[in-house]
Amino acid sequence: MTSTDGVFRVGLLGHGTVGSAFAELLPRHAERIERLTGLRPELCGVVTRRSGSFEEILERADLIVELMGGIDPTREWLLRAMRSGRHVVTANKQLLSRHGEELWDCARSNGVQLRFEGAVAGVVPVIRVLQEALAGATIDRVHGIVNGTTNFILTEMARTGMTFEEALRDAQRLGYAEADPAEDVDGRDAAAKMAILARLAFDTPVHLDQVRYEGIEHIQPDDLSYAHELGLELKLIGTAERIAGGLSVRVHPAFLYPKHPLASVHGPFNAVTVESEAITEITMSGPGAGGPQTASAVLGDMISAMIPPASTPPTSQVMEIVGDVVSAFYLHLEVADEPGVLATVAQVLAGHDVSVKSVVQKGLGAQARLVMVVHPVLESRFDAAMAELADLAVLRAPPRAIRVLEEEFG
Amino acid sequence: MTSTDGVFRVGLLGHGTVGSAFAELLPRHAERIERLTGLRPELCGVVTRRSGSFEEILERADLIVELMGGIDPTREWLLRAMRSGRHVVTANKQLLSRHGEELWDCARSNGVQLRFEGAVAGVVPVIRVLQEALAGATIDRVHGIVNGTTNFILTEMARTGMTFEEALRDAQRLGYAEADPAEDVDGRDAAAKMAILARLAFDTPVHLDQVRYEGIEHIQPDDLSYAHELGLELKLIGTAERIAGGLSVRVHPAFLYPKHPLASVHGPFNAVTVESEAITEITMSGPGAGGPQTASAVLGDMISAMIPPASTPPTSQVMEIVGDVVSAFYLHLEVADEPGVLATVAQVLAGHDVSVKSVVQKGLGAQARLVMVVHPVLESRFDAAMAELADLAVLRAPPRAIRVLEEEFG
Repeated sequence: MTSTDGVFRVGLLGHGTVGSAFAELLPRHAERIERLTGLRPELCGVVTRRSGSFEEILERADLIVELMGGIDPTREWLLRAMRSGRHVVTANKQLLSRHGEELWDCARSNGVQLRFEGAVAGVVPVIRVLQEALAGATIDRVHGIVNGTTNFILTEMARTGMTFEEALRDAQRLGYAEADPAEDVDGRDAAAKMAILARLAFDTPVHLDQVRYEGIEHIQPDDLSYAHELGLELKLIGTAERIAGGLSVRVHPAFLYPKHPLASVHGPFNAVTVESEAITEITMSGPGAGGPQTASAVLGDMISAMIPPASTPPTSQVMEIVGDVVSAFYLHLEVADEPGVLATVAQVLAGHDVSVKSVVQKGLGAQARLVMVVHPVLESRFDAAMAELADLAVLRAPPRAIRVLEEEFG
Repeated sequence: MTSTDGVFRVGLLGHGTVGSAFAELLPRHAERIERLTGLRPELCGVVTRRSGSFEEILERADLIVELMGGIDPTREWLLRAMRSGRHVVTANKQLLSRHGEELWDCARSNGVQLRFEGAVAGVVPVIRVLQEALAGATIDRVHGIVNGTTNFILTEMARTGMTFEEALRDAQRLGYAEADPAEDVDGRDAAAKMAILARLAFDTPVHLDQVRYEGIEHIQPDDLSYAHELGLELKLIGTAERIAGGLSVRVHPAFLYPKHPLASVHGPFNAVTVESEAITEITMSGPGAGGPQTASAVLGDMISAMIPPASTPPTSQVMEIVGDVVSAFYLHLEVADEPGVLATVAQVLAGHDVSVKSVVQKGLGAQARLVMVVHPVLESRFDAAMAELADLAVLRAPPRAIRVLEEEFG
């Protein structure tokens, strides 16, 4: 199928938020992808519900990217693409949670790839991990926060005490909720994603209609203040688990104890925890759906369809390995308990452009110490300051320093 | 290469902790893997430094699993295996961080797979994610807690106030540190892993000797109590980041602010955060090295070498989808402020086998409410209790319930 002129032709179905983000991302990464795969990816056409010809695009394309959504005509188009030997990448959770078996059968029998990382949890690579890394594991349970809209709303309700309606309006204003948020807030969007995860984790067919779901429309500020009192976090949790009698797949709000790996997932982030006896648990988190994020997952799928598996490409850049970087530091000094010590220390630091952010004087007499945090500075400068401090008569022991990662690193 | 008798022959090099865990895991999963791949995996021989013949194993094997460690003779053997067209799976971080380019070149030029998920962070699928899901992303920074021994020691020092030496002895007693812990505690083990991650994230050759590292031997209980006062967490952090002038790869202890995604990684767990403009950040966490965990990562690599990429296998089980599961609940009742209300409510709950774990009475008059948490119970029973509660005259509003995930779910 792959063209012989060094070009890899991508036919795009759909040009909404994700589709246009993908169309923008592809040329920006084309050079890097060519270096990686030996083929230069190019859009060979865009079809929407209102414009373009699917037949013409299919004729030209090596791979079809479907970001149009809905069941009709996407189901038929993707089946036709795969029957014509084209790989398919899609982010269509509604389609896969209803017609997945038919589509996966079609991919297998035509020997093509059907990839769908973008359908669940944006760039969080849960599909790939379930399909590949954990292919050999017996999975007991999958827990997920797989809808960013509801997680943003619950985070805001908990943070500010506002009502569901107020938080929803904020989410809409900030672009975290659509004008019609029904499928997000009633749990149906998360249910479709859990149907797909359950299918992959348990090798059992799961249709969207078999997933029980509840949304967050009825959550009251009261419930969140109660949660706060007890240190609990309220999340919309999707669960797929092996239980006596079979498999349970469900979505509902739930309180989490603070040490649960999903309790610290805030705002529009998504996260999935996979539990298995052999591996204990793996948790993956990152930004949920969003145009650029989902487009990035789609691009990763496209590249995977282009390269041989597990390939470590030749090095393509030889970057200088830099030794001297900028860090903030914690500095612990055991000092003599006498006047002027802080001034002496501060002068040494200033002499090397090391700027103090905070300082605490602790203890008395033989226990006296200065504990400080300094602003980010080139490590070579800080080391020079340390060397000079070590020689000060007012120090009773060698100075100790530990780096501090700045808050922006969160 | 693959045998025509339906058997996939695996030659194992090494029979230490991970090697023997792999040898035990393989037959237990053979049936499932056969269903998945159509081929039944079998060990066709084990070679250690002291026993077995590499030539004989190589002759028979479809794939070589290397869990022997060290540079010699593993480097030579893996090169010979790949030149003979065999896929290779290894967990040898020392080898890859010193001779990676030679090995990866060899894999590419012989068209075989060289997989090494087990070399970094056990089952946390960071290698696969960097090689595949993020192949198209421009990565800015990788942060990792990639040594479980040191993370366990720092967690225990912070929790108990004990010294480094005491925590190390505990770690050795519990099997989280080796008899000779030098390479773990001095940061060298983490440095090898960061060299590999940096190579994959930045397509630039990185040798172990180019990684600056510091260990945790000099950390004092004092430093951790200071961290505790400020709500900081002290971790041994590996960093690979694009900076002005090139690439910095380093390992050192660092204080993290509580909202940093790595701050909540405790005990022997590993975690890696990948930052990129397009995706913001992805964090993956799970158990670090350990016999069964690393063996599980190796098994995942082996299966990936056996199956076509991105395959969703046919469903192999049709599990019953169960609707009625067991949950704990939070229950919020707006009640009349009069004697006997709690008794009435408790009686209804007891009548449906719903057992109360805790109850708080809040507010007075028109604000009076009962807030309770009930023990796990079949949801159908809880629903029946809710229906009966809703009819009680002493309720001023419909009862509200939200599930609570029990602590064991952490």
